[in-house]
Amino acid sequence: MEANDLESLLVTDLLNIRYLTGFTGSNAALIVSVHDSPGREDNTVVCTDGRYVTQVADQVPDLRAVIDRASASYLLGGELAPRNAPIGFESHVVTVDQHRAWTGLDSALNLVRSPGLVEDLRMVKDEYEVGLLRDACRAADDAFAVLLGRGSVAAGRTELEVARELESLMVEHGADGISFETIVAAGPNSAVPHHRPTPAVLAAGDFVKFDFGALVGGYHSDMTRTVVLGAPQDWQKDLYALVLQSQTAGRDALAPGVSTASVDAASRSVIEDAGYGEFFLHGLGHGVGLEIHEAPGIARTSTGTLLSGAAVTVEPGVYFSGRGGVRIEDTLIVRDGGPELLTMTSKELTLV
Amino acid sequence: MEANDLESLLVTDLLNIRYLTGFTGSNAALIVSVHDSPGREDNTVVCTDGRYVTQVADQVPDLRAVIDRASASYLLGGELAPRNAPIGFESHVVTVDQHRAWTGLDSALNLVRSPGLVEDLRMVKDEYEVGLLRDACRAADDAFAVLLGRGSVAAGRTELEVARELESLMVEHGADGISFETIVAAGPNSAVPHHRPTPAVLAAGDFVKFDFGALVGGYHSDMTRTVVLGAPQDWQKDLYALVLQSQTAGRDALAPGVSTASVDAASRSVIEDAGYGEFFLHGLGHGVGLEIHEAPGIARTSTGTLLSGAAVTVEPGVYFSGRGGVRIEDTLIVRDGGPELLTMTSKELTLV
Repeated sequence: MEANDLESLLVTDLLNIRYLTGFTGSNAALIVSVHDSPGREDNTVVCTDGRYVTQVADQVPDLRAVIDRASASYLLGGELAPRNAPIGFESHVVTVDQHRAWTGLDSALNLVRSPGLVEDLRMVKDEYEVGLLRDACRAADDAFAVLLGRGSVAAGRTELEVARELESLMVEHGADGISFETIVAAGPNSAVPHHRPTPAVLAAGDFVKFDFGALVGGYHSDMTRTVVLGAPQDWQKDLYALVLQSQTAGRDALAPGVSTASVDAASRSVIEDAGYGEFFLHGLGHGVGLEIHEAPGIARTSTGTLLSGAAVTVEPGVYFSGRGGVRIEDTLIVRDGGPELLTMTSKELTLV
Repeated sequence: MEANDLESLLVTDLLNIRYLTGFTGSNAALIVSVHDSPGREDNTVVCTDGRYVTQVADQVPDLRAVIDRASASYLLGGELAPRNAPIGFESHVVTVDQHRAWTGLDSALNLVRSPGLVEDLRMVKDEYEVGLLRDACRAADDAFAVLLGRGSVAAGRTELEVARELESLMVEHGADGISFETIVAAGPNSAVPHHRPTPAVLAAGDFVKFDFGALVGGYHSDMTRTVVLGAPQDWQKDLYALVLQSQTAGRDALAPGVSTASVDAASRSVIEDAGYGEFFLHGLGHGVGLEIHEAPGIARTSTGTLLSGAAVTVEPGVYFSGRGGVRIEDTLIVRDGGPELLTMTSKELTLV
């Protein structure tokens, strides 16, 4: 904030408020003052509505809280917001209409576009956060092991049945819930990168692609594995080996200080060199944490640099429309001595 | 759009795009032209990225589709967007930064704030949508009946265990997933309107409040029931009867052409007349559909009017902090001859 010459920052993104304060209500605004230091938040105030009187006192006992359902407008319109001093706001999430309403409150308000300040902090996970990510990844690993181990991925079952079973297993193995809608894509559907499960029936010879994750304490895991139902054909073995080689190259490229675009390139070049670049249709990966997709993005067009402690996915894929596709994805923590792998499920080509 | 003098409307809200086109991808923009009529969408175009080449062709076969990951910026920057003619944009969801980027693309773009146009259409459900809402409500009803019937709501179990079981039961009974994070709140926790389930143990004499819903075909059900574990005390019986009377009054007030504020008042006055107005901390209800909370809002401060075909909740609650609370909620369709109740679970005080 000081680097941006801000007097205070108005935080209205609910996940950013949760990250900074621990408050999980569905309506809140927070003013963070540059004059406050940790443990002495005299000028910092959170506002929520009457539904959360009890909850805000429980979750944020050390912070000044006011109750008004107008939250951000209430804070900006009252004496809690400074006048004639720069107040940053989250211009990447605040809507045109919200901003318009705020600027109409008082002409002495000096609202300054300040996108992504809290997201930048969120990129680097502390050990408490890594612990939650590790627990989330373990729940997904354990659930997938049981799903395969008890023969639930079998010809004749539907994508939807298998997806729902996998989701229930994640909860049985410690997930608070699912991280996003589970993808189970069989046969030709495996060539649809973000396929939603359907009543389509799994058949012998199919690629079956699973993209799924568990939620623990608000933190999201993300993993993709592609298996073969029965004996793989040569093209399936070759395609799988290529994507695994690409994924390994991407993981190996993860290091603090490295540009995200170069990580994408390290993985993508393996597929391009094999002549399949046009079938790798998406970016290589993304940050994970309180959101399933957060900073940093890892793609050809990304401009950022990896920091130690960033939690990211590496997920190349090659998709042959109408035929089938393979994606392999892990969640990892960027570390000085090489990335820490959180999703431990084997990446050998699994035949079920 | 004609009433707003718009040449075209840029739709970027993904649920609004889903509503208008059926496309469910996670990156899209849509330009709707005023010159098009149903079945002749010559000037209407949807844009998404390479992950969705197959999916957009499957889901939106009749609409012109272009592939570019910049979606809205791509449409606005190219020849697909008119110049020097008013293009509406969804200023209630478009961020300050997005709008700033768009206005920088071409000075001949005339972007006009046009909030809520598609949401207004979404308020009134057609019979296909009502069918999905009915299925979602039935999944929730059936799951709750099994949960109670097999004795799963019992002293010694935790809120979390019961919540996860209820969620699994909804999926077993036809839900694609859950509508929102299930609330199970026992004893003093029932006084927290939006309590998240914890490892707290259910005990004899507790109020146990359930607020939960099922998701079917993208449509959300929403229901709250409060039960008593064992024999109710007099204050519990009295409180329950009061909230039920208030909820009945709110349901009875639902009719086309009625102001939403008057529906809130009909229900709230019952609680205020009993002297407990200060313990009813939230609005009476909200629209449901592709979102769990959508237009119309039903609260003291609401300004709208109910339309025939609107899907809404009615959910008064009274909360005694540290002691316990009761909320009773149904999902209903506003109809000319009186509302159609979709959540069929009994509202008699249930002892488990």
